[in-house]
Amino acid sequence: MLQSKLLLPTLREAPAEAEIISHKLLIRAGLIRQLASGVYTYLPLGYRTLRKVEAIVREEMDKSGAQELNMSVLQPIELWRESGRDSAYGPELVRLKDRHEREFVLGPTNEEVITTVVKNEIKSYRKLPINLYQIQTKFRDERRPRFGLMRGREFLMKDAYSFDLDWNGLDVTYRGMYDAYTNIFTRCGVRFRAVEADAGAIGGEGGTHEFMVLAEIGEDTIISCNQCSYAANLEKAVSGVGKALQSQQIGIGNQVSPAYESFATPNLKTIEQLAGQLGVDASSFVKTLIYQAGNELIAVVVRGDRDVNEVKVKNYLGLVEDIELASESKVQAVTNAAVGFAGPVELAIPILVDQEVAAMGSVVCGANQTDQHLRHVLPGRDFPLDRIGDFCNVRVGDPCPNCDGTLEAFKGIEVGHIFKLGTKYSEKLGAAYIDQDGQEKPMIMGCYGIGISRVVQAVVEQNYDDNGIIWPLSIAPYHVHVIPVSMKDETQRSVANELYQTFQDIGADVLLDDRDERPGVKFKDSDLIGIPIRITVGKQAGEGIVEVKLRSEEDKQLMNLEEVVSFVKNQLATIG
Amino acid sequence: MLQSKLLLPTLREAPAEAEIISHKLLIRAGLIRQLASGVYTYLPLGYRTLRKVEAIVREEMDKSGAQELNMSVLQPIELWRESGRDSAYGPELVRLKDRHEREFVLGPTNEEVITTVVKNEIKSYRKLPINLYQIQTKFRDERRPRFGLMRGREFLMKDAYSFDLDWNGLDVTYRGMYDAYTNIFTRCGVRFRAVEADAGAIGGEGGTHEFMVLAEIGEDTIISCNQCSYAANLEKAVSGVGKALQSQQIGIGNQVSPAYESFATPNLKTIEQLAGQLGVDASSFVKTLIYQAGNELIAVVVRGDRDVNEVKVKNYLGLVEDIELASESKVQAVTNAAVGFAGPVELAIPILVDQEVAAMGSVVCGANQTDQHLRHVLPGRDFPLDRIGDFCNVRVGDPCPNCDGTLEAFKGIEVGHIFKLGTKYSEKLGAAYIDQDGQEKPMIMGCYGIGISRVVQAVVEQNYDDNGIIWPLSIAPYHVHVIPVSMKDETQRSVANELYQTFQDIGADVLLDDRDERPGVKFKDSDLIGIPIRITVGKQAGEGIVEVKLRSEEDKQLMNLEEVVSFVKNQLATIG
Repeated sequence: MLQSKLLLPTLREAPAEAEIISHKLLIRAGLIRQLASGVYTYLPLGYRTLRKVEAIVREEMDKSGAQELNMSVLQPIELWRESGRDSAYGPELVRLKDRHEREFVLGPTNEEVITTVVKNEIKSYRKLPINLYQIQTKFRDERRPRFGLMRGREFLMKDAYSFDLDWNGLDVTYRGMYDAYTNIFTRCGVRFRAVEADAGAIGGEGGTHEFMVLAEIGEDTIISCNQCSYAANLEKAVSGVGKALQSQQIGIGNQVSPAYESFATPNLKTIEQLAGQLGVDASSFVKTLIYQAGNELIAVVVRGDRDVNEVKVKNYLGLVEDIELASESKVQAVTNAAVGFAGPVELAIPILVDQEVAAMGSVVCGANQTDQHLRHVLPGRDFPLDRIGDFCNVRVGDPCPNCDGTLEAFKGIEVGHIFKLGTKYSEKLGAAYIDQDGQEKPMIMGCYGIGISRVVQAVVEQNYDDNGIIWPLSIAPYHVHVIPVSMKDETQRSVANELYQTFQDIGADVLLDDRDERPGVKFKDSDLIGIPIRITVGKQAGEGIVEVKLRSEEDKQLMNLEEVVSFVKNQLATIG
Repeated sequence: MLQSKLLLPTLREAPAEAEIISHKLLIRAGLIRQLASGVYTYLPLGYRTLRKVEAIVREEMDKSGAQELNMSVLQPIELWRESGRDSAYGPELVRLKDRHEREFVLGPTNEEVITTVVKNEIKSYRKLPINLYQIQTKFRDERRPRFGLMRGREFLMKDAYSFDLDWNGLDVTYRGMYDAYTNIFTRCGVRFRAVEADAGAIGGEGGTHEFMVLAEIGEDTIISCNQCSYAANLEKAVSGVGKALQSQQIGIGNQVSPAYESFATPNLKTIEQLAGQLGVDASSFVKTLIYQAGNELIAVVVRGDRDVNEVKVKNYLGLVEDIELASESKVQAVTNAAVGFAGPVELAIPILVDQEVAAMGSVVCGANQTDQHLRHVLPGRDFPLDRIGDFCNVRVGDPCPNCDGTLEAFKGIEVGHIFKLGTKYSEKLGAAYIDQDGQEKPMIMGCYGIGISRVVQAVVEQNYDDNGIIWPLSIAPYHVHVIPVSMKDETQRSVANELYQTFQDIGADVLLDDRDERPGVKFKDSDLIGIPIRITVGKQAGEGIVEVKLRSEEDKQLMNLEEVVSFVKNQLATIG
């Protein structure tokens, strides 16, 4: 492509709404433009990279034996009612009515449709297992679209759905997808981890892994072991604390100990204030949080230095919807005290006690009375232990659940997610098959997503320097950037054109900067858009010598034309 | 691909809603399934062909110098208000509101968005001309979706938009698109004509051509000359009649002639009844039709044997919206007579007189009195000739407007459309550039669409026989169908597998029917899905002999393995 013709509007400054570096660079390098909040146009450069990621995904999905099809964006609301997701999805689901007032949704994901397709077309065990995928635009009406392509309202996604005879079959399919995803993200040139995750609103009875690109700006926290391969997102992560506690006696509060007593703690509402005042560590206290869980109130009691993990609480309660902290007025009503003085003693709502608290001896807690706390409180004696569980977030430094290692934390961007769905959709929508012995059985499903447009930006978030993007060769919009220092110099122009042609002939995607601009402008743009191989055709062009520089490295090399062609060939060979 | 694994549900019968042969075949051959009225899922076979058409379109667009980008499906309604199309498009425009009650449309076409993109990014004449295209899912809420992919509510379309400095530039770009389209449809293996067309609701000041696949079930009528290259759709077609008339004196009714008089024609309401009764040809009469044009009524007077062309009338009046026949009560009110007796004499509304009528001598027409007609009516003397034009449909047998030939009619399916838009959108949305001499000028636009999903079905409508589809090699879901007669025969199985591998190695898309089915079932399915090259591996497999048959031909040939590989290679070479 000739750069003079290309719609490639580079900018010195990114607009104010771009908060993170990858978003800024995608705009500055002329890859995307915002049309509305969370809705983007891919300019030619951006679309080239998007299609390269798409191609890698397609190749690896095909290699895994999955079959590509294509479902519609418009989905009849009736299917979502059958699965029960029309309400579960809430306001993120984009809805519309057609001219006959029939209601549709714009698919954010396609479990209902694919299950309907498979139910209609496959009846026998002979046609199973099958794994069907598509690469399609999806819609999600995010409450707060942000970070460019990271959290958009319209985005490109690969979604796959597998149908197996049984759980063992699903395990094999799932493993195949895990491997395919590993190949895909490796080929895209990102550093990532596959982590255990919570299934969330999509449901599912089996396991689930998120593929996380490691990046400081990631919205998700990944917990991983410094010794073994254990990795999970914060919502799901467990530590070795629970295992250690199993050897201890639960409810040791039954030992002989003085009765609890209250003491004045005026205006000491937080654990930090309390610990500071009393001069003891926060881990000697327990804190009691009151949650709204559906229509009920519940209390969660955790050690003073821990944070409640709401997903663990929600899963313990078997809820679909998220829980949230109860309103101030409700807390006051149930504790008869100002907020900050709740405690588990004599509290008239269900009390979920974290496993660590259950194993503690005498503790300090709120007194359910304003400006008062209790001491010498014994778990099991002074409050019930009939609801014990792991209700805390893991912390850096906690022991690993699998080995002697220690847990670390990273920030990550979720770019892929694989689920064992089981029969959630096949039972609701009636996708069953006739087994060898004539019995009807529900198909065992899995689903597997990749946020293709998000990958594009995640790659940038990991690959840049002060001057711009540093594209991995595999998904760069162009492989080679040929830059004649002066287009007015006939020799340079002719050598540049010759190389432009030769590189195309060997299958490279080449951009020729044929603009009549100063060299400084050209190099600045070149660094900004980040094409991996830069060939500068300058004063030595007459001798057949050009300068080669990789965007990812500082060094420049002089090569003759033969050398540079074989150099580019070798580089291309690395991406297959 | 192994057929035993492929989601390829063939059917003996098509569902009742499939009215036309191509729709039936797409369903029976397992290419598509309906999810909702006008909304389809592409099964793997169907999606493969869709993607092959897409690839041809992309190649030819790239070759023409157009640049690919990708715009969003969601478009803010404000842009459609700026262009004025939000009302002009009517109920076909799919609308929705987001969670903040902001209104969006689902793009049926992207003039507003692309004009906004270009306006923001291009300011100088140096970056023009530019032609930008995308391949994207579009939405149109058809009043009556039908014929499968022919008239769906969600469909895949290639849309391109060009921006030129001036009209001469647009002419060049337009010609380039005309040529690219010719290449695309030729490569897709369809018989088509490019015809002059009316610009319709999309607007445009310059020319426009439709690319029509010739087919009996086509909803459009194409008029073309039997001698020269003249071709236009019926809405737009003109005949040589007008040219012939230019040499005649208009308003020859001014010659001396008896005054008109009325005569009784009880219950003779139609031209046919009248002509039969009087024993003269319908061409001696004129008929007068009353139309509702916006808020006004107008009369259109044409020769008795002609049909009014409403598009020509609408364009003469400079209207955006369609005109329609006036209601019975309005006709009665304006003519003071029952419907069927309208005439141009003493009629108190604007009268549009077809050029042919203007050149007639004495005519017979309605008397604006029930059961009465007038004779000896002279155009120009007895009714005004201040609004003369071409208001008739061309008819088969009319003279060609360009040569001595005669006009013929065909039915066609519109698969492509190219427009010279001019400044319609650039002026409304402010897409201007600074010229060499510092002057601001509006960009001159063109737009160019191809209905990719419609092409898939149009190809089938032209390429089938009693047994099923006959795919052109270029867009067939697979090139080669390898069919071992018996999968139980080890030799056949091994030869089939060897060929399967070899064909893949030479770049062919191969389907291997590895199912344990009777040969009759396999051949029936093979004919139905229409893979171009069928290789049957039967009893002579042990001697290295297989049977080769093209789906498009009756003959079968025996070949050894070497011959069959080079045969397939040669076939593939024909599609490049």
